[in-house]
Amino acid sequence: MIWVNGDIATHLPVTDRGLLYGDGVWETIGVQQGKPQLLDWHLQRLSAGLQALNIRFPNLEAFRAEILAACVAQERATLKLIVTRGSGQRGYSPATTTEPTRILQLSHWANYPDSYTEQGIRLTLCETRLAHQPRLAGFKHLNRLEQVLARAEFGGDYQEGLVCDYDGNVIEGTMSNLFVIRTDGAICTPDLTQCGIAGVMRRYIIQTLEKFGGQCHIHPLTLKDVEQAHALFMTNSLIGLWPVREFSGKQYTIPPLLRDLQAAIHTLA
Amino acid sequence: MIWVNGDIATHLPVTDRGLLYGDGVWETIGVQQGKPQLLDWHLQRLSAGLQALNIRFPNLEAFRAEILAACVAQERATLKLIVTRGSGQRGYSPATTTEPTRILQLSHWANYPDSYTEQGIRLTLCETRLAHQPRLAGFKHLNRLEQVLARAEFGGDYQEGLVCDYDGNVIEGTMSNLFVIRTDGAICTPDLTQCGIAGVMRRYIIQTLEKFGGQCHIHPLTLKDVEQAHALFMTNSLIGLWPVREFSGKQYTIPPLLRDLQAAIHTLA
Repeated sequence: MIWVNGDIATHLPVTDRGLLYGDGVWETIGVQQGKPQLLDWHLQRLSAGLQALNIRFPNLEAFRAEILAACVAQERATLKLIVTRGSGQRGYSPATTTEPTRILQLSHWANYPDSYTEQGIRLTLCETRLAHQPRLAGFKHLNRLEQVLARAEFGGDYQEGLVCDYDGNVIEGTMSNLFVIRTDGAICTPDLTQCGIAGVMRRYIIQTLEKFGGQCHIHPLTLKDVEQAHALFMTNSLIGLWPVREFSGKQYTIPPLLRDLQAAIHTLA
Repeated sequence: MIWVNGDIATHLPVTDRGLLYGDGVWETIGVQQGKPQLLDWHLQRLSAGLQALNIRFPNLEAFRAEILAACVAQERATLKLIVTRGSGQRGYSPATTTEPTRILQLSHWANYPDSYTEQGIRLTLCETRLAHQPRLAGFKHLNRLEQVLARAEFGGDYQEGLVCDYDGNVIEGTMSNLFVIRTDGAICTPDLTQCGIAGVMRRYIIQTLEKFGGQCHIHPLTLKDVEQAHALFMTNSLIGLWPVREFSGKQYTIPPLLRDLQAAIHTLA
């Protein structure tokens, strides 16, 4: 089921700048028992992205009400939000654009095998690198060709691919964020000020670690840091937390902390 | 008038990856006396972009026939082509996608004032920088947020904005390519292997300079190279060639060579 600007629809004008330039932002949200999980944080990131692109969207609260109404009868679903700058006259200039376009799509729950959560996943290294663009880093805009190229590199043997920047720093998975537990017990996740998407589930994990009395260190990470880690895991709003059981020919353990974090994610439902 | 996959249409499915990820390429072409100008080169660049994104589009020749048929009655028009990877299942993976989507849009001729061609334009320097991403450089894909951000920086006092990369190299205008004539007469245009769009009109200028017995040097250019230049000009398929009369507080002359190049462009009509 799809709504475009509040009406049930399947199509969008060809002149929408979301298509023409990727001029917009989006969110993917898990819905359980009628409730979109971590909705406030998703809307906060959406809002930050709109601000970074200078897209005026005064209807955020009305959009929130639409979202909640759409989800109320959904026991388990995936919710996708898109807000674009809307249509305008020809050319890159956003000066002549009309009202933003808001899209809300409910679809089936992403049914990944339970084994990914329980036994962990096989992670591969992508050759595609992320460019440094601090103006577009952190939020979830519609310019996602780097992710498409990286995701195209691997098939069913791997469940996720790790992507580095051109400086050799490890940044994230193609659709998830990376966390590293070092052999000394320190927990780290890559700095995302130059590129990458700061996931809402990443934020939840960082907050939950603090609640557990720990701390997550955010700084640049190299491939060596990843290879020498004690444990690795990937997160996003739909998968929750996937432990990594294999990367680059090395096997990783799944420490009890990961089960505690998974249990915390479970309470969101 | 818009055609989507050969049928007259105004809308596109919300699930098209052109919208979701900017997963596609496009061209803007001038049409005069029923003829799309430099169509072969536009289709060559489109094709190179599709190949870089690994989008299989076997219908290029049928698309060419559609384009020619659509343009035949147009005395003066602007033609926009978009080819996306089409719709697919959820997620970045292009493995499950169906047929590519092809869009053809005819609209009015871009009516810029003649003075831009004759007396030249005022050029400003944008603060927005282009990221280095060689995998996406040169061709005209749908991930264009950098151009949107740069174009939003200036209004009517300037006709175009110059954009640098993060290393301080000058790359291009927001919607055009830059050429520099140095005081020793050498003609240069920035190298675009790390970022930027290699314009079809840029290619035509380079070829025309060779026909004139000259040569265009393609290499990195700094802001100093631009400021110290004898003359500057910007090109694209719709504007042709705009001399720059002012940049960064400095006035530039319009040498006779620019009139010869404009006359050559005029013969395309």
